[in-house]
Amino acid sequence: MKFVTFAGSSHRLGVLLDPDTLFDLTSAWRHADDSTAPSDVGDLIALGPDGLREVERLLREQAGNAAYTARLADTRLLAPIPRPAKNIFCIGRNYREHIVEGNRARGRDPHDFPKVIEVFTKPPTTVIGPDAAIAAHADVTRELDYEVELGVVIGKAGINIPAARAMDHVFGYTIINDISARDLQKAHGQWFKGKALDSHCPMGPCIVHKQAIDDPHALSIQLDVNGERRQDSNTADLLFKIPDIIAQLSAGMTLEAGDIIATGTPSGVGLGLVPPRYLRKGDVVSARIEGLGVLRNTIGD
Amino acid sequence: MKFVTFAGSSHRLGVLLDPDTLFDLTSAWRHADDSTAPSDVGDLIALGPDGLREVERLLREQAGNAAYTARLADTRLLAPIPRPAKNIFCIGRNYREHIVEGNRARGRDPHDFPKVIEVFTKPPTTVIGPDAAIAAHADVTRELDYEVELGVVIGKAGINIPAARAMDHVFGYTIINDISARDLQKAHGQWFKGKALDSHCPMGPCIVHKQAIDDPHALSIQLDVNGERRQDSNTADLLFKIPDIIAQLSAGMTLEAGDIIATGTPSGVGLGLVPPRYLRKGDVVSARIEGLGVLRNTIGD
Repeated sequence: MKFVTFAGSSHRLGVLLDPDTLFDLTSAWRHADDSTAPSDVGDLIALGPDGLREVERLLREQAGNAAYTARLADTRLLAPIPRPAKNIFCIGRNYREHIVEGNRARGRDPHDFPKVIEVFTKPPTTVIGPDAAIAAHADVTRELDYEVELGVVIGKAGINIPAARAMDHVFGYTIINDISARDLQKAHGQWFKGKALDSHCPMGPCIVHKQAIDDPHALSIQLDVNGERRQDSNTADLLFKIPDIIAQLSAGMTLEAGDIIATGTPSGVGLGLVPPRYLRKGDVVSARIEGLGVLRNTIGD
Repeated sequence: MKFVTFAGSSHRLGVLLDPDTLFDLTSAWRHADDSTAPSDVGDLIALGPDGLREVERLLREQAGNAAYTARLADTRLLAPIPRPAKNIFCIGRNYREHIVEGNRARGRDPHDFPKVIEVFTKPPTTVIGPDAAIAAHADVTRELDYEVELGVVIGKAGINIPAARAMDHVFGYTIINDISARDLQKAHGQWFKGKALDSHCPMGPCIVHKQAIDDPHALSIQLDVNGERRQDSNTADLLFKIPDIIAQLSAGMTLEAGDIIATGTPSGVGLGLVPPRYLRKGDVVSARIEGLGVLRNTIGD
């Protein structure tokens, strides 16, 4: 199942019936039980397995009900989790080719691979949805860059999760564009400041439940700028796989339902090109992951 | 005014009438208007100036009402904001003496001062209150360290806040102990992993409204381990002052009401001692800032 959050009189939860048609779960759910109806994908995840069972029941009984269906083209999608309850966890340097590229750009040994995950975060104020404008913040940064990433959404809380059981804690997957202000990232020592500007975490278009993805480590992953392919890889190139990321991240730290982990980006970022090529107002950035759709955003003011 | 959050049948907001006596604002407020009563200091801050006016009214009319007063000794304080709505912003290396100490420990030029703020974060799952146990996480870290810090709590949202107007956005101040797992901080490249273990952000005992603090840059700041003074400085030694921190942090990034900024720690951390001295089970850590009280926690399992 592919879950979306879309704009209505308030936020609403939907599920895609086909690529063009959306089922309004919030409205159908409210008709059945107003008190528990989730209004975005985060609310649904918080309900745990009961939430998914109710979704299945509603789809079984109401999927043909025209009152609850809408054309995707007639709706405005938001980030599936529009306001995460904490910062998004981001894994740095996790595609082998991207590590080589970054090491070269910084004049280091190209094959100096991290031994453990590197983690930084993006605050909830960075999150925007599909088609929303990415703010250029031209008064703050001159080196705006893109990073397509597979986002892992946690469905069940845990601490010290062993890698062998880590996938039980996954709800599903989404696309994240980890927009980065390279000048700030460099100047401020720690990466946070360059990763934290408002609107610099496009997310979506949907969260795909894990059951719909055969192997999250065999997905093509791409990013285009104005139709020109810049990143083109496969999640098979991930240095730390999802179970290992969850095991390392949850060591001593509780992961909670609704937490989002951006798993790192492949080679081809603007910083790594010779000479570097940064994003400018009007550029259209399209991030694509096999089975998860396309996340398209335009650089605004 | 000194605001606290304390444990009752649910979380409750209080204000200290004197060092030993607490006024139960949540109960008094509910009696007047159940729908808007805040249940912790974060809820109060979200109400803006109206919230403070209601507090003043309740105190004027009800401060003598024994039904709403309690001895502090009979209550259990929680972190004033028990569950922040995003990660806590932390400024690294911001006391001149501490920078010199850190540079020496890392074999760098002692007087290599940062030109801009360094920022990392601690997730909401790190937050604990006064007297709560700091988990040792002995299976994850062997180098547990302390860092007393002045916490600045934002009261009014803003982006690109000029330093000259930054203090208008401050609600008040608290004590934060930025517990750090030094081995993880080093191994994982970015600092996040070593700063993010459960219970590693003791906060409190209260949030003091800014009007009660004449000059936040002239406060003595200390930390004791088992009664032995380890950190002893003054916020006058801050390299980046509060208005500058807020201006730099809010450049391109919206600060929101209830956001918490830990402003960095003075010299004397365990890592900086020769040889380094780390925290062990049973150690009692007392962090003290002039006018803000004492934040005491014990290292647990």
